Amino acid sequence: MHPLHRALFQPRRIALIGASADRTRLTARAQLYLRKHGYAGEILPVHARENEVLGVRAYPTVTDIPGEVDFAYILLNTPHVEGVIEAVAAKGIGAAGVLADGFAEAGPNGAALQARLVATAQRAGLRILGPNSMGMVNLNDRIACTVNAALEAETLPAGRIALVSQSGSMMGAIMSRGAARGIGFSHIIGTGNEADLSAGEIGGLLVDDPQVDAILLFLEAIRQPQHYADLARRAHAAGKPVIAYKLGRSPYGAELATSHTGALAGSDAAAEAFFKALGILRVTSLESMIELPALVIGRKPPGRSQRAVSVTTTTGGGGAMAVDCLGVAGIEARAPDAAAAAKLDAAGIHHHGRLLDLTLAGAKPERVAAAIDALQAAEDTDLVLSVIGSSAQFKPQDAVAGILRARDAGGAKPIAAFLVPQADASLRLLAEAGIPAFRTPEVAADCIRAWSEWRAPRPGTAFPVIDQAFPAAPDEADARRLFAALGLASAFAVLRTPQDAAKDVAFPVALKILSPDLAHKTEVGGVKLGIADAGALRQEAAAMQGRVARMAPAAKLTGFLVQPMAKGLGEAIIGFRRDPEVGPVVLLGTGGITAELFRDVTLRLAPVDEAEARTMIAEVKGMRLLGGWRGLPRGDLQALARAVVAVSRLAARSDISEAEINPLIIHAESEGVTVADAWVVRAHNG
Amino acid sequence: MHPLHRALFQPRRIALIGASADRTRLTARAQLYLRKHGYAGEILPVHARENEVLGVRAYPTVTDIPGEVDFAYILLNTPHVEGVIEAVAAKGIGAAGVLADGFAEAGPNGAALQARLVATAQRAGLRILGPNSMGMVNLNDRIACTVNAALEAETLPAGRIALVSQSGSMMGAIMSRGAARGIGFSHIIGTGNEADLSAGEIGGLLVDDPQVDAILLFLEAIRQPQHYADLARRAHAAGKPVIAYKLGRSPYGAELATSHTGALAGSDAAAEAFFKALGILRVTSLESMIELPALVIGRKPPGRSQRAVSVTTTTGGGGAMAVDCLGVAGIEARAPDAAAAAKLDAAGIHHHGRLLDLTLAGAKPERVAAAIDALQAAEDTDLVLSVIGSSAQFKPQDAVAGILRARDAGGAKPIAAFLVPQADASLRLLAEAGIPAFRTPEVAADCIRAWSEWRAPRPGTAFPVIDQAFPAAPDEADARRLFAALGLASAFAVLRTPQDAAKDVAFPVALKILSPDLAHKTEVGGVKLGIADAGALRQEAAAMQGRVARMAPAAKLTGFLVQPMAKGLGEAIIGFRRDPEVGPVVLLGTGGITAELFRDVTLRLAPVDEAEARTMIAEVKGMRLLGGWRGLPRGDLQALARAVVAVSRLAARSDISEAEINPLIIHAESEGVTVADAWVVRAHNG
Repeated sequence: MHPLHRALFQPRRIALIGASADRTRLTARAQLYLRKHGYAGEILPVHARENEVLGVRAYPTVTDIPGEVDFAYILLNTPHVEGVIEAVAAKGIGAAGVLADGFAEAGPNGAALQARLVATAQRAGLRILGPNSMGMVNLNDRIACTVNAALEAETLPAGRIALVSQSGSMMGAIMSRGAARGIGFSHIIGTGNEADLSAGEIGGLLVDDPQVDAILLFLEAIRQPQHYADLARRAHAAGKPVIAYKLGRSPYGAELATSHTGALAGSDAAAEAFFKALGILRVTSLESMIELPALVIGRKPPGRSQRAVSVTTTTGGGGAMAVDCLGVAGIEARAPDAAAAAKLDAAGIHHHGRLLDLTLAGAKPERVAAAIDALQAAEDTDLVLSVIGSSAQFKPQDAVAGILRARDAGGAKPIAAFLVPQADASLRLLAEAGIPAFRTPEVAADCIRAWSEWRAPRPGTAFPVIDQAFPAAPDEADARRLFAALGLASAFAVLRTPQDAAKDVAFPVALKILSPDLAHKTEVGGVKLGIADAGALRQEAAAMQGRVARMAPAAKLTGFLVQPMAKGLGEAIIGFRRDPEVGPVVLLGTGGITAELFRDVTLRLAPVDEAEARTMIAEVKGMRLLGGWRGLPRGDLQALARAVVAVSRLAARSDISEAEINPLIIHAESEGVTVADAWVVRAHNG
Repeated sequence: MHPLHRALFQPRRIALIGASADRTRLTARAQLYLRKHGYAGEILPVHARENEVLGVRAYPTVTDIPGEVDFAYILLNTPHVEGVIEAVAAKGIGAAGVLADGFAEAGPNGAALQARLVATAQRAGLRILGPNSMGMVNLNDRIACTVNAALEAETLPAGRIALVSQSGSMMGAIMSRGAARGIGFSHIIGTGNEADLSAGEIGGLLVDDPQVDAILLFLEAIRQPQHYADLARRAHAAGKPVIAYKLGRSPYGAELATSHTGALAGSDAAAEAFFKALGILRVTSLESMIELPALVIGRKPPGRSQRAVSVTTTTGGGGAMAVDCLGVAGIEARAPDAAAAAKLDAAGIHHHGRLLDLTLAGAKPERVAAAIDALQAAEDTDLVLSVIGSSAQFKPQDAVAGILRARDAGGAKPIAAFLVPQADASLRLLAEAGIPAFRTPEVAADCIRAWSEWRAPRPGTAFPVIDQAFPAAPDEADARRLFAALGLASAFAVLRTPQDAAKDVAFPVALKILSPDLAHKTEVGGVKLGIADAGALRQEAAAMQGRVARMAPAAKLTGFLVQPMAKGLGEAIIGFRRDPEVGPVVLLGTGGITAELFRDVTLRLAPVDEAEARTMIAEVKGMRLLGGWRGLPRGDLQALARAVVAVSRLAARSDISEAEINPLIIHAESEGVTVADAWVVRAHNG
């Protein structure tokens, strides 16, 4: 295992720099909790004035500690943190946590302080957890190196789920909610501001830990996306699912998450695409974080999903509620198919419709087990959900016995349970047995949806580098040449003067002024459509030159762009940008106002291959009109898919920050697409 | 109070017809639970062979019981229920519950049985609860006349929320979840199949009950909508909120709810419109049913809502989670306005952005109270949400003290709490204090959204009766005459023969065949557009007559419709139908394929007034293009609103089941609208 792994997760000697001797102070907690929860290693308080802190020998500086130290938790106030970094590194300590806040999340001064802190640490070879880190808990090894108040609990169940959280307070909240259900964690790590170590990198270290079966991420922002990619691919190879809850689904939440952490806000659609591409399960409910792991631990992502489940119930109303919530989440509860129906008939279980209601058959364990067993045989569903009514409240052993029996019979599909009444004892029994169990139908639906959308991480796509030169001050012709080099060429000609002939372009044509300085050509009279012949073109170009020079005297004019007038069956918009959190993304939408009014767009991490581009096309509703809708003529969606691939390949060009084709005109089947307008923005640092 | 009220909710002598002497049987439970929970009245078992049932004197028939009986719970098997109805009625019993299932929910035979049962009961003057009713619980008066297993609990907290549930099993589930939180109920009533008494009528009876502060409905289907309208208006007058959870948000759930209950499925959009119009709060999460009441009890619907809240927190991550979930539900967490900021400054509380984070200020009760108090002063938010972190888990008294103190200071806005960790004791303390408290941010968002959308019931709109005659076999001209009588006239002429002149219609015109038998005129050559003059019109009409006669020889042809060719700025669709659950509704959508691809439609109970029609227009995205979007010319949305009102007035015409104008052409501002195509369907029973 990585040397960082031991320093962070299994330290045998921990320095607590700035440990308080006053047990009511926050900075005393790490020492108190380490002791309380049975830390077997050595606690080494560092205190400027005291020889002893809470009954333990203290040292004036970290340098004074004899022998090797694995981990330092720096509990000093913000202004004093920077001063101890070099000493910590000089002591040979590989990693240090920093508790203080007031860094990047506190504005420009804090950000500068944080940048200096990281630079100092990097020079000295020290890895930093935080700042603003609540520390680390390893429950199996009884190491509670944290100030999180959740450790006030007398005992906390150890388990095999690692939780990495950017929010310190959510560490305790999730842990406490798990504990109430008998669901324990292996590690809980607070990454705070992630000046150095990101949740992605920490998660990557935990993939190799034999105590860990699944990794849970609570994220406010995605920093260093490459670490998440590495985490996700290695976790998939190791058969360890990765689950993420990320703030920012609403604009208010996004604003808050980033202002809270000093990160730049990406779009939630980009984050969603990121998780999907990496095979990270994203949940959107608080309690999904404790309820989803049991469903995915020990499983691989379903290669193909039916987005359908079989549901059996001992309570009509509760079962219907589950079916309804699943439906809202896009998961269909399906009636038994022929195979399942045959087994139900053989078992003498009456069935009818989407919900196998055992109320009449009796909720006895052997009936529930027989029902689940029969539904396991259905070929058109992915999972069996067993809904349990009042027996879950009053007869916990009976209520879960049927599910356990069915599970032990060893069907291929996951079995999960939703308990309709308040049923704490049954929930605990199911947790102990490792059976996914849901407290509410909404969380059941969120988890089953996430599971059903779960895929293996997308393989890294190797695309050839595009070595088309791109000038520092590009005009539209440069943009079109770049797209042509990417594989998306449309006829055009460049006239340097109004007298030049437009070669290889059929009339009628459109004429546009070329200038690296004019983003909005129409407004300065720089666009003229429907020019019939060469004579008119010369005239119009001359007139345009004079007009634009008058209206935009400061703009550098580099010539004229001539392109054939194109009319197709439909229009699309293809965009490329670098999301500040997850990196390059490609967007496809309906052209014109439709995308804007109805947000009829879809987005992926760039680059994409043609198969993925086709899936994107299928997701844009307006594109159905070109796919044979109600006998309308079909558009060339193959060419559209190739165009999406071409634009997405800009990901390989770090000199490009943003690009758009709007509109891309889609012609009839096998007649291709035409770039009607295009722009490309150079990266400032490109 | 209504005599039914006492019979159903405060019976002093209860006959249990078919009570079992075997305490393990379902049919023994009512007697056992009545006893167990301390029923002070008289239990009167009726048993064909036993003189005594579970130690209580039994009677061979209900007729043999001496003296008056208030309520009978019929526990007999399905085939035997009908036989006792007349005897129960003859005994002078006003109401009887029926436990058996196998009625309308079981298919046509069961439906016929149910119809006979109701007819018999109605003749005899007996009101029926059920069939398929789990009975009734009145917790304050210790009457547990039910077979619901939730009554196995030793004690159940009594409260002031009445729960009326079509699902028997959900009675127990909701009660048990409330009990775990210290949230009690006044009544729990299972209405089952509602052959006679609907949840709406039962709820209406409970409005007058002094033990009841709020009414909670768990619904699978809406039957007898007029009872809900009555319930809602009287409950509003009495200041008692009505909350509904209704299945059927997904098509699978809708199918199930109706197949389960034997009801006809309406659309969920219609149900949503129904609840909104009646001022019934609709929730979409299971636990909202127990968490929303405290927020609305004792309050009137907000006259106007900002859809914005103030949020303060003692935990950054948990607070951000709440803000994000609220944002997803369309509720903005807003930064303190000037008034609130001034009070925060005066209290020395640092504030910054959307989330008032007290982590630094300290989570002491007086700080929390001061923060809530300051946020109460904000003029641009509707509610203060206090998010509590780890103190909720370890220091319940402290955690809630600040909220209690702020509440007692008596601000105008509701104060609610979201507890981030597992915090059972704090939740109980808040429940005892009547403070709305949420276990998860998702349910907090669902409840706050429902509350913020809550309005007073829409006043009944009086519209004049439309006495335009409408033939049994209408053609499009009849439909247009009816719309004209409703106030939506567009120029047209009817030619009886090809030689007739088209009066009052300006050329160019469109020509259509008129026939009560041809729904699709284009397919039989019955539509011709852009006819330039009277000569061409005569020719085209003659040709059309021959063509249609050949292609649809069986159709009765009633003449020709001539209308001016109209071109506007946009197109709308206006529809009218009678939803099988909630009754007449009016729909407005974007014309053409947009409505279909993007479901760009909105719906209301019909009739609507102009103000409501304008709100509908604002909800249809495509209509923004006609409202001054990006400098586009404005359409006559006033005329569109009047057209919606006109179509909605079909509600008063019970002879009309369905109607549609598609498209309605919208002209420029103050130039009106044109009915381009219209059809109206006569009700079978109209």
